[in-house]
Amino acid sequence: MSEKSLEKNEIFDSYFKNLSDRERAVFEGGISLGALFHQFIGTPVSEKTKKSLEIAMSESLKNQPFIEDVSVSIVGIIEDGKYVSLTGEMLDVSLTVKTEKNRALLRLKYIKELDYPLMYVEKI
Amino acid sequence: MSEKSLEKNEIFDSYFKNLSDRERAVFEGGISLGALFHQFIGTPVSEKTKKSLEIAMSESLKNQPFIEDVSVSIVGIIEDGKYVSLTGEMLDVSLTVKTEKNRALLRLKYIKELDYPLMYVEKI
Amino acid sequence: MSEKSLEKNEIFDSYFKNLSDRERAVFEGGISLGALFHQFIGTPVSEKTKKSLEIAMSESLKNQPFIEDVSVSIVGIIEDGKYVSLTGEMLDVSLTVKTEKNRALLRLKYIKELDYPLMYVEKI
Amino acid sequence: MSEKSLEKNEIFDSYFKNLSDRERAVFEGGISLGALFHQFIGTPVSEKTKKSLEIAMSESLKNQPFIEDVSVSIVGIIEDGKYVSLTGEMLDVSLTVKTEKNRALLRLKYIKELDYPLMYVEKI
Repeated sequence: MSEKSLEKNEIFDSYFKNLSDRERAVFEGGISLGALFHQFIGTPVSEKTKKSLEIAMSESLKNQPFIEDVSVSIVGIIEDGKYVSLTGEMLDVSLTVKTEKNRALLRLKYIKELDYPLMYVEKI
Repeated sequence: MSEKSLEKNEIFDSYFKNLSDRERAVFEGGISLGALFHQFIGTPVSEKTKKSLEIAMSESLKNQPFIEDVSVSIVGIIEDGKYVSLTGEMLDVSLTVKTEKNRALLRLKYIKELDYPLMYVEKI
Repeated sequence: MSEKSLEKNEIFDSYFKNLSDRERAVFEGGISLGALFHQFIGTPVSEKTKKSLEIAMSESLKNQPFIEDVSVSIVGIIEDGKYVSLTGEMLDVSLTVKTEKNRALLRLKYIKELDYPLMYVEKI
Repeated sequence: MSEKSLEKNEIFDSYFKNLSDRERAVFEGGISLGALFHQFIGTPVSEKTKKSLEIAMSESLKNQPFIEDVSVSIVGIIEDGKYVSLTGEMLDVSLTVKTEKNRALLRLKYIKELDYPLMYVEKI
């Protein structure tokens, strides 16, 4: 498991006694997806700079408690020589949360039928 | 219950069949706390403008699925004539999530012993 | 003029001796428009919560040095019961910068021909 | 000069006829510094993830009109195994703006005497 210091802190743990391990996993995953979206939406991005933004988004989220892995894809083609502000529609994010007893796979993905960038639990 | 259109959408619901009602509540609550923090941290704020920011933060979060109520306090005194960038340490947020069978009270609060603005489930 | 404490600070002033009063006005105005856009883009907003967000955006920007007045309109109709993430296309902002010798009117507005939310100086 | 498409657009240019070339340089530089600050403040960052965030911040800003170069340093040591939310105090940014007739060097740097992350024009 992770060596993040908060995860091994007793005071930290004491705040989560009312949650099951599964509930904890989806709670922490939800926080991280909400954080990712609202931290980075609006960032100027072009084809040239996509990669560095995907990496930074993923790396920054790995700092959060119980986040084992994050993969960020900025989807769609941005016209040559142009840049846009990052929107939720452009994001395809997979996030793995690892708690004591569970590993959950969460997703942020634009769902066309909903016209909405949906955050959901793909597997737990 | 809320009249938000997403909450009554079948396609939307189909993505959450693998979560219990309690899990759903803490997942949606986690998303909204992560969103609130990362959307508004950095906003210029002074004693004069605290109130309008608290209101806008709270109102914006009420748009999110299953969020029944939000109360935001920006704590601490900002020196007269000065402004600061909003930090997580300054936030005391209570958020009520209402799903079909549960009502959960979530909290974002700076915990001194952890030196960390903690997001947790106060009651469910 | 404003009673903001930074504006009356000698150390602060010493960093701006290489700018004319007009240059100072457009520099400070540019900072504030860039700040406004990147702070608030992504905020959940609906018809019901538009007004509180417009007020908070405007109030928060008035804290910044030399910003005398700000008016924010979130344009376009958001479908009933729905919410969206605030985008640059939805913003129409007028900002008045007041320096010692100049008053500048700046604007952030979506320009259809450019398909771009443009920041420019309307009058100086 | 840059090959960014907006910079070569006549409609775009028509909005800036009331600014001198120097004024244009400081205006565009101001926008980009304000943008950088308010886009990225709050991002989770640790010693391990500093570098990727510095790169993404710098790359994203190079997309903006007239921004020739950007260098971002996240200063200060973050305790091992911990992460923090990025603050303005941690930023040391140098930004080069290149307009038709001017090259300006702008800076964002925490000034201890002011207890303020200052944005200023270092050289023009």
